[in-house]
Order: sequence, then structure tokens, then C-alpha cells
Amino acid sequence: MRQKVLQLLKDKSPAHISGEEMARFLGVSRTSVWKNIQALQLDGYYIESSPRLGYRLTGVPDLLYPAEIIKGLQSRIIASAPELICYFRQVDSTNTALKNLADQGAPEGTIAIAEEQTGGRGRLGRSWSSPAGKGISLSILLRPSLAPGDTPLFTLMTAAAVTQGINNVAPGLSIGIKWPNDLLISRRKVCGILTEIKAEADLLHYLIIGIGINVNSKLEDFPPELKKIATSIYLENNKTEVSRQKLTCSILQKLDDFYRRYFLEGPGFILAEWKKYNITLGRKITINTFRDRITGTAVGLSPRGALILEEKDGTRREFHSGEVTLR
Amino acid sequence: MRQKVLQLLKDKSPAHISGEEMARFLGVSRTSVWKNIQALQLDGYYIESSPRLGYRLTGVPDLLYPAEIIKGLQSRIIASAPELICYFRQVDSTNTALKNLADQGAPEGTIAIAEEQTGGRGRLGRSWSSPAGKGISLSILLRPSLAPGDTPLFTLMTAAAVTQGINNVAPGLSIGIKWPNDLLISRRKVCGILTEIKAEADLLHYLIIGIGINVNSKLEDFPPELKKIATSIYLENNKTEVSRQKLTCSILQKLDDFYRRYFLEGPGFILAEWKKYNITLGRKITINTFRDRITGTAVGLSPRGALILEEKDGTRREFHSGEVTLR
Repeated sequence: MRQKVLQLLKDKSPAHISGEEMARFLGVSRTSVWKNIQALQLDGYYIESSPRLGYRLTGVPDLLYPAEIIKGLQSRIIASAPELICYFRQVDSTNTALKNLADQGAPEGTIAIAEEQTGGRGRLGRSWSSPAGKGISLSILLRPSLAPGDTPLFTLMTAAAVTQGINNVAPGLSIGIKWPNDLLISRRKVCGILTEIKAEADLLHYLIIGIGINVNSKLEDFPPELKKIATSIYLENNKTEVSRQKLTCSILQKLDDFYRRYFLEGPGFILAEWKKYNITLGRKITINTFRDRITGTAVGLSPRGALILEEKDGTRREFHSGEVTLR
Repeated sequence: MRQKVLQLLKDKSPAHISGEEMARFLGVSRTSVWKNIQALQLDGYYIESSPRLGYRLTGVPDLLYPAEIIKGLQSRIIASAPELICYFRQVDSTNTALKNLADQGAPEGTIAIAEEQTGGRGRLGRSWSSPAGKGISLSILLRPSLAPGDTPLFTLMTAAAVTQGINNVAPGLSIGIKWPNDLLISRRKVCGILTEIKAEADLLHYLIIGIGINVNSKLEDFPPELKKIATSIYLENNKTEVSRQKLTCSILQKLDDFYRRYFLEGPGFILAEWKKYNITLGRKITINTFRDRITGTAVGLSPRGALILEEKDGTRREFHSGEVTLR
């Protein structure tokens, strides 16, 4: 009902609509309309009321409400219906929340989205800072019938999709992808991706792609230890805020496009899309694995997304995991 | 205390030891000794008592008690200490039980072992029949710092280790491995392996290798639908029972050897060990994937354990998952 009241206000905006008219249209009491208006105001919607004219919507908060996200979205799998979007004002971690839903059988395309994470996680057990209302914390549940070894492709896919999603909303930013999936602007991290999987040896049960983006964070929003290595779209975009709603919608659209394209075209296009934003290949790098620390030139990607490194003596090695430092 | 009483009985067997002597040695009351003897008898140990001579151990049940399993085992990682062995008379699934322990931080090398599974699981959501006391249901927790795509190697490793473990205890059986990990004797399945993982895109958090072996099952122990496709060591071993304790110990020993060797020598030796029992390569096969059904000749393994199939027209393809039928 709340969403229906909101829709009527939106349809009529910037004009007024009376409580009586809404009550009649929706087949409910005027008291019910009034209660829903109050709830919407609590949610942050700006609704003016004047005794004779009725109600008027004058502003929509930039919060990640499912109804706002889904508005411009034309996806077929990811967040393709309102019931596939789990929204949290605050959550420990969207990945953890979505994992619980996945274990209970949530369908492919379900997403978890939060204004704030209290225990946001990054790769290798690190934490991820996500203060309220400044960033986007978004997790996506996919269930492709593939082997666990195919997972890295989806991480590369996500990195490319998020880059394009940001570019659509804030054109002109120079975003580069450091292998496998760090989005950097002027060498600082603007987005991190954490993909987690549950699988048999040769079959994925599900994969959860967690995306954390620093959107409208000011410098003071970053903890001291991150000020030099992290940035936000706002900071790089002439200190202009971007709509988190539009950005989320843009990213979900790209992810849905890419994910469906993968099944039509195979993995080749993912590598090609990723390479458009590549700042790793062709460079001298050091890779830290759990056993080694090797320096060489990043010369390419394997068909499954591994990084191919050429050492000084010309030997080539494939890396399926590791932490890259650009030299 | 129960284990200490058992140890004293074993040390003295086949001679008697008096309750008084045990009480004195262990620093407990004679009543305590007596209660522990009763508990051991309930566990299936054959203990004679005679009023003047005391107690005498005359038989040990072929149950998978940690104290019995660990006796001859010289492992360094897998089940290398009694507290790493979780024993169940009955459990829904040893993989599920061990997964819960793993999520709570159980260390590498922890195993779960059960006399009976009420909800044993196989690959691709299938069930696995494991009646009480006839088979071995065993799950092993490993935490190698590797990528999810390396998982299939450990499945192949397990198939080879179990084959050798069985050969040590029941020599002369002709066990063949159908890719990736079905152990067959005369085309019937004697052992199934279900490997499950939790991981990030490029780092395993843990892998759980579940092993189900039909050891002393008679034909009537199999459900009707399995009589033609399953077999047991007993049935293939001239209807002679083998010790489940010894077999478990033998398999754990081989797995521990192989797992440590992997880190010293790399994956090459796993492929070589696997190939010793190969009944897939060099044969005409059909592979069912989630999308295709392809017939061709199995010509080799990729370095990461994928099956390489050559089609009629000479094109070669790699398969990371799928169900193989031997033609």
C-alpha cells in the first residue's frame, strides 16, 4: 500500500493530489492514506500537505529503496522483480545476509543492498569501511551451472560492469582495473569486489558477488589509514555528488547484460571488456601469492582469467590468485 | 578414563588384569574401573571377567572408534591427533557435520567419521546409501591456500589414495577410476567421493572431502535400485570381510602422504598416481555436462585435472565437470 500511495504521488507530482482522491482510487480509508503518507515521510520522502489541495511530492531521498532502484531497470535475471531485492538500512555484511538467503534457497538474481554495513568484509579476511548513506553495498546471488574454476571470470566481469556503470553516471572519470578486480582512480581504490562461492569440486552451488563502492564519501568520511589509498566518486568528480540510486541501477543493468551475454557468447567477451580498463597488462608488477613474491611483466590473461606473468628470463607463469602491486 | 582402562586391558591381553590393579595404576576407585568396563562392553568390546583373575580383553569390535583408527596411523596433518577425529555412531551426513565444525574454525586435518549416515549425500544432490556398520563414511577437512580451480586435483588425489588404501588391505582387487572420482570394480561402484568447498573467487577457505565406501555390504544390504550398479569390497573379495578399522587407517595414511607430497612436488604426481588406475583415458566415452552431451575419445588430463576429449573431427575440448559414461 505504501508503494501504491508513493506511486500516486509520483504520477501526480509536481501537482497535488487529495487524500480523498487517493483513498477512493486505492479503495481504502483516508486514515490509511494518512498513515502511509507519514511512513513515507519517515522514510525520507519530502511530502508537502496543504489543507485544501492535499499532498504533493517535492523530493525523493537518495536512498537505495527497491522501488527507486527498480524504476529504470530493465533486467531479466538480476533484481528483475521487487521481491528479489532485499534492502537493509543497516546490516553486518550484505554478502553474509545474502549467503543466508542462498542457503535457504533464494533464487538466482536475488540481491542484498544496504545503506550501511557494520561488518563489511573485503578479500582475504580484510574489513571494508561502508559508512551510512555514502557508498553502495550490494551483493548479487548467481547460480550458474559451472565449475568453481570459472568463478574468476565473474569477478572480472563484475569489475568491467561496475566500471561501465560508473562511467554512465559520472562520465569522464578515468577508472582503471588492477587485476583481478580492484577499481582504481589515480591509483586509489574506489571499489572493491568480494566474490564468495559454495560448490562441489566440479559444480558451483552458488556465487555471491559483493560490491562496495565509495560514492559520495568526503575525505573526512574515510578512516585515517585509508585516506591515502582510497578515494570516492565524489572526490574524483569535481566534488559533485552522484545519485546512488541511478548508479546502483546502472550497475545492475550492466551486470545483467554481461551475465546474459556470457551464456550467449562465452567467456571471451568478458576478457575483452575487462581489457578496456586494464591497467595491469603490459606493466611491470609484483605478485604476492601465499607462497611466493614474484616480479615480472604482466603479459596477458588465460582463457579462464588467470594472470600470465613473464619473468626476466622469459619464463611465463599463470597466477590464479595473488595480490598485485603495480611498479 | 575409558580409553586408559581400555589401554591397560590391551597392554595385558590375552592375560587378565585385576580391577584393583587398574584402580591403583590409574589412581581411581574400583567402582570407577568397573563403570568404565561396563561402558566399554556397551561399546562392543569383549571383556571377560572372572572373580579371582580380574578382567581380560578377548575381542575388539570392528567399529571406527578414534582410539582404534589412530593406532597404526602415522600421519602429520590428517587425523594426526585424537582430538581431530569426530566420531559418530549415526549422523545425517559426515560432510555436513564437518562443514559445521569448519565454519566454527576447526583446524586442517579434522575428520568426521560415522558408522551410519541417515542422509548421506552424493554428487549433484544425489543420495548415498550407508547402512550401519557396513561401510565407511569419512570426511576430511583441508585448508590449503589455493584457488578454487585447484579443487579437482584433490578429488583426483583422493580417488588415487583410496584405491591404494583399499589395495593395501585387500590386495588383488582390480579397482579402476572413472573420471573424475568414481572407484569401480567390474564396472560397479565401490566408492564415491563428494568434495565440497567454501571459497573466495581466488582463495579456498576450506575443502571437505567426503568418502563413502561399500566395505562389508552383502548383496541384500543394497537397495534394489543399486544392486546392479554398486558393489562392495566384501562381494569382490571372495565374500571375505575386511577390517573397517584397518581400511580407514590405511586410507588416512595414504591421503596424508599424498597431501604432504602435493606441497613438495606440485600437482604432477597426483595426475601420475591417478593414471595408474585410470579406466577413462584412451577410451571412447560420452560426457554429459549441464548443457551438452558429447561423445569422443578421452585423450588426457589438463595440468589442473580437466578431462581432454577428442571429437571425431579431431577437435579437442577440455571438460572441468560432467558425468562420464564409458562406451
